[in-house]
Amino acid sequence: MHWIKLFLPKISCRRQHRPLWQFCIQRAFSSHFPNQVTDEGIDQPSSQVEAAARRETLILRLPKGTRDFSPEQMAIREKIFSTIISCFKRHGAVTIDTPVFELKEFLSDNWGEDSKLIYDLKDHGGELLSLRYDLTVPFARYLAMNKITNLKRYHIAKVYRRDQIITTKGRYREFYQCDFDIAGKYDPMIPDAECLKIMHEILSALKIGDFLIRINDRRILDGIFTVCGLSETKVKTVCSTLDKLGKITWKEVKNEMVNEKGVCPEVADHIGEYVQLCGGVPLIEKLVQDPKLSQNKQAMEGLEDMKLLFEYLTLFDILDKISLDLSLARGLDYYSGVIYEAVLLHQDEHLNVGSIAGGGRYDGLVTSFIPNWKKVPCVGVSIGVERIFTVLERNTELMENISATETEVLVAAAQRDFLAERMKLITKLWNAGIKAEMFYKKNPKILKQLHYCEERGIPLVAIVGEEELNNGVVKLRDVPTREETNIPKEKIIEEIKRRLEK
Amino acid sequence: MHWIKLFLPKISCRRQHRPLWQFCIQRAFSSHFPNQVTDEGIDQPSSQVEAAARRETLILRLPKGTRDFSPEQMAIREKIFSTIISCFKRHGAVTIDTPVFELKEFLSDNWGEDSKLIYDLKDHGGELLSLRYDLTVPFARYLAMNKITNLKRYHIAKVYRRDQIITTKGRYREFYQCDFDIAGKYDPMIPDAECLKIMHEILSALKIGDFLIRINDRRILDGIFTVCGLSETKVKTVCSTLDKLGKITWKEVKNEMVNEKGVCPEVADHIGEYVQLCGGVPLIEKLVQDPKLSQNKQAMEGLEDMKLLFEYLTLFDILDKISLDLSLARGLDYYSGVIYEAVLLHQDEHLNVGSIAGGGRYDGLVTSFIPNWKKVPCVGVSIGVERIFTVLERNTELMENISATETEVLVAAAQRDFLAERMKLITKLWNAGIKAEMFYKKNPKILKQLHYCEERGIPLVAIVGEEELNNGVVKLRDVPTREETNIPKEKIIEEIKRRLEK
Repeated sequence: MHWIKLFLPKISCRRQHRPLWQFCIQRAFSSHFPNQVTDEGIDQPSSQVEAAARRETLILRLPKGTRDFSPEQMAIREKIFSTIISCFKRHGAVTIDTPVFELKEFLSDNWGEDSKLIYDLKDHGGELLSLRYDLTVPFARYLAMNKITNLKRYHIAKVYRRDQIITTKGRYREFYQCDFDIAGKYDPMIPDAECLKIMHEILSALKIGDFLIRINDRRILDGIFTVCGLSETKVKTVCSTLDKLGKITWKEVKNEMVNEKGVCPEVADHIGEYVQLCGGVPLIEKLVQDPKLSQNKQAMEGLEDMKLLFEYLTLFDILDKISLDLSLARGLDYYSGVIYEAVLLHQDEHLNVGSIAGGGRYDGLVTSFIPNWKKVPCVGVSIGVERIFTVLERNTELMENISATETEVLVAAAQRDFLAERMKLITKLWNAGIKAEMFYKKNPKILKQLHYCEERGIPLVAIVGEEELNNGVVKLRDVPTREETNIPKEKIIEEIKRRLEK
Repeated sequence: MHWIKLFLPKISCRRQHRPLWQFCIQRAFSSHFPNQVTDEGIDQPSSQVEAAARRETLILRLPKGTRDFSPEQMAIREKIFSTIISCFKRHGAVTIDTPVFELKEFLSDNWGEDSKLIYDLKDHGGELLSLRYDLTVPFARYLAMNKITNLKRYHIAKVYRRDQIITTKGRYREFYQCDFDIAGKYDPMIPDAECLKIMHEILSALKIGDFLIRINDRRILDGIFTVCGLSETKVKTVCSTLDKLGKITWKEVKNEMVNEKGVCPEVADHIGEYVQLCGGVPLIEKLVQDPKLSQNKQAMEGLEDMKLLFEYLTLFDILDKISLDLSLARGLDYYSGVIYEAVLLHQDEHLNVGSIAGGGRYDGLVTSFIPNWKKVPCVGVSIGVERIFTVLERNTELMENISATETEVLVAAAQRDFLAERMKLITKLWNAGIKAEMFYKKNPKILKQLHYCEERGIPLVAIVGEEELNNGVVKLRDVPTREETNIPKEKIIEEIKRRLEK
């Protein structure tokens, strides 16, 4: 059994599901354990020996806020990505790639106060570089630099923020973003509606549970602030308090606005009358009739567009998950119109990962890179894959059934000295596109080979041996039923393909 | 036409095939062009206005040695990756992911002199971090940290080196590596042979031209140096000169060894007698009989293994592309046994990209991370995707036929005021998994819509209009033949799928 365990990545890999601190402790005490190295053979280069000596006192660990992904975790991650990408492609999007670092000057202007979270590279005496903190700013830079006025693109890549780490909520310092954006001047709300349709399609396909998409518009929000008499300098800070509504009560939000942000209580109450409203088309109709709001040009533009957007969302048949929510503010500076985010419903309080997708319209960002050029309005959606991954990883049933390998056939031998025959047979299988493995032993035991297939869920075993060789056949074993059939050598590929199709 | 051009990513994207300096020049002079911004509407946040003002004097560019990938380039890249990944999976490999940066202390010990090429992150007052320069060291760190003794994994990700930039040869500072490695203690040369089989399968499948895989063994090379009387301190520097053999003549190599590296001429001549040898099994037989080499234990171990390897490569049926080449040294410190690399044959001198795949055995690397633990021998292969990409990008026929989008149907209207009907129909198509687009205009012209499909190679157009609506049909147009058929509304999905299957 010991041998099989060593051989099985599945079993070995499980070990890494143990929390990291266990490894650290084990490492820290490892000098107390007897030296297990019993190695014949190859000398190590001397630099490695030195490095090893230096490391004997070190504890192996990762940078804060980063993580490795095991094969099983990667299998889930790839499933999520492939669902998302197939939706993006279904909507005609292409993909681009940009460098992981950019010139600092092109990144730091766009992130306001959060610029302190940017990872800078060491100044090696040349350029000042920073790791990208999102994919939207590089997208705008790409459009501006290449003078592209129209593009529907997706981009899935890692971004970096020196932010607070909350691993239970899927918040790391290195994480994937997964963006879809439409750049170009079009008729109002048509691309915006498609972004919401995409969000709806992806969250439905991922089967992570019931969700709600909250929508608002920066212009409506600005209009509300104006008619309520909030001073312009306080807009940003009030937005960040407002964003907590839902997680904390209106009373608490108001307290923070008044006591921490210095908003006068009457203004706060007035704002509260608006931002506690949620709904659909009837709410829009009501707001359009609102005596104060209807006097504000910006708010009215936002409301007119919102009406149109709801029409389009009805045609796209996704209104069931949509709610106009006047408290939605979203953090980023660059939004200029419609904004939205999706949240999971029925989540445990302590497991609440927050929004799992978000986005909006940002019509000024490209211009900020190339002021003397035409305007390139943009709208986009970002899928929160890390949070979705965190939610799915808690699904024990899913985790237990996930298989990291896709091997279809194990080429095995029942007797000694059949390595050459195994190699010849597996070559045929590989060349025919069949996913096949064999043991890297000259004389593996047949029971261990069969056990390996059952452990790993490999459905077929192709067995060669003395008798099979003499009769010009290969023994094909069905792992679940343990049924064995002799197949003529020249028909083995055909037969394996037939069985795999079933 | 102007409108269509604006709408077409394909056309807009082509612009970025112009060299970067053209954009830079254009940007530098852009203040001389009339201001093209004629924008109604949304105000920009003030931070963006400030950023824009500051940027008016800046030239948009990328960090040295990095590049963006356009949708067309990404389409080729994805084709390459998918060919490679399907081969890795065919051989039963799983994938892992590791962070793009690691603690500096775990990276810099393993790269010898080249450590100066590592990108460090700025010290933000916490950990000292560096960007990974390969995927092998993080793989070994992953195995050591998680105490994994057996794993067959692939990893495709970006790595970073502050190296000399030669864009014509595909050498950048940010580039993809594409690695397959087998960790674990097995019978000699079986996993090594599989790595070579994989290299052979991938290079054949990519159809980049005829190639040759050169093989050697560090132990044979060390044996040669020893029996020729080269002092141990000179081994590394002589290796780097030796690696040039093939690009420059033996006479030039010898000159460099003697005049620059201080090797005595007789030693150099003696080394030359060995390292100019190439061949197969007969060469191995000859070396085993060599009076001097046969006295060297290391060399004999290497030769015995080489004999076994050639047996296995014969069984895997890939001997046609293999050559034992005693001049092959490979740069990296950590190799301890078999080494190999693939080169393209029949390349123009000035287009020569060098090796397009390489790898070898490194049995000491994992131990260097965790000295008091058992040994984890490893062997692997790295596919040079950037160089392969550079070669394929020169294939104009391939570049012209590549399509970045996969759209199957354009949902169009022949008359005004049919946006709602288009939206309803496209929703049906998307929900049925059909890749569909529509124009983001309320009233697009039918000719422009048809033209768009012809330009982009979209095979079908689904047209709605007054007449179709009244008759409960959709007009389905075949773009290549321009044939149009009315299809009952309830059968449209079925009919589209039937046509796409053909």
